[in-house]
Amino acid sequence: MFKQVLIALAGTVVLAGAAQAQQRPEQAIKYRKSVMTLMGSHFGRLGAMAQGRIPFDAAVAADNAQLVAMLAKLPFNSFGPGTDKGLPHRAKPEVWTETAKFKEAADAFQAEAPKLEAAAKTGNLDQFKAAFGAVGKTCKACHDTFQAEKDN
Amino acid sequence: MFKQVLIALAGTVVLAGAAQAQQRPEQAIKYRKSVMTLMGSHFGRLGAMAQGRIPFDAAVAADNAQLVAMLAKLPFNSFGPGTDKGLPHRAKPEVWTETAKFKEAADAFQAEAPKLEAAAKTGNLDQFKAAFGAVGKTCKACHDTFQAEKDN
Repeated sequence: MFKQVLIALAGTVVLAGAAQAQQRPEQAIKYRKSVMTLMGSHFGRLGAMAQGRIPFDAAVAADNAQLVAMLAKLPFNSFGPGTDKGLPHRAKPEVWTETAKFKEAADAFQAEAPKLEAAAKTGNLDQFKAAFGAVGKTCKACHDTFQAEKDN
Repeated sequence: MFKQVLIALAGTVVLAGAAQAQQRPEQAIKYRKSVMTLMGSHFGRLGAMAQGRIPFDAAVAADNAQLVAMLAKLPFNSFGPGTDKGLPHRAKPEVWTETAKFKEAADAFQAEAPKLEAAAKTGNLDQFKAAFGAVGKTCKACHDTFQAEKDN
């Protein structure tokens, strides 16, 4: 089952190659946490624009959204079997028990993220806000089910 | 002096905007360490191809090199004043005392990284190896001077 999920993910994620499958659990956890840190930082800047806390700059937004779209491809192969332990992290056990649902949540995020880049490039703030909201919903949906409040 | 360096860097780094200047030291350290973790992972995969440990695949190499080139834009604004303390990290004090030299090292890396992406896209292994070596030299030059062996 895990293997099927990993193969299914691998098909869409050229960046996450064989090297990752051979990672030690600590490496995989450190890797995916790093992705999430960067994602949070750059998605946060997009949020600041979407919510009007800083002015909307289409070029800056597009750059940040492009990075978010690239980062979106990276973390999900790093939740393989055995990577529930090794370093403190916030992934709930459901990641490893509800793999089909987890994959669905990851797919939803990966489908929306590139649309935010496209929306930013239009320079239209309303389109950007709508796309930001759609991506944010997929973040929240996954975190609500699969992310713990604190390290476990 | 720091401000000048930050402004000089900011000119080339659209992704690292005002938000970063307002980061707390712990956030800045966590951010730049996350960038380095991903850089190491994906540059490592390119190294495995350059050194013949895994087969050279131009498409995979180009994807990884594109990511490395994007990541190369990110960390250097996160070494601002006051970010030498807050979390364990491996940046030497020289980062904050030899700022011009540090900027030079960062510039060298940022100049070479995009060339690796271009070389990977040619599909020519020799060109790829040469470009990989050139980037690796800029990594090593910076690490030799500015990175400690262990967390400080």
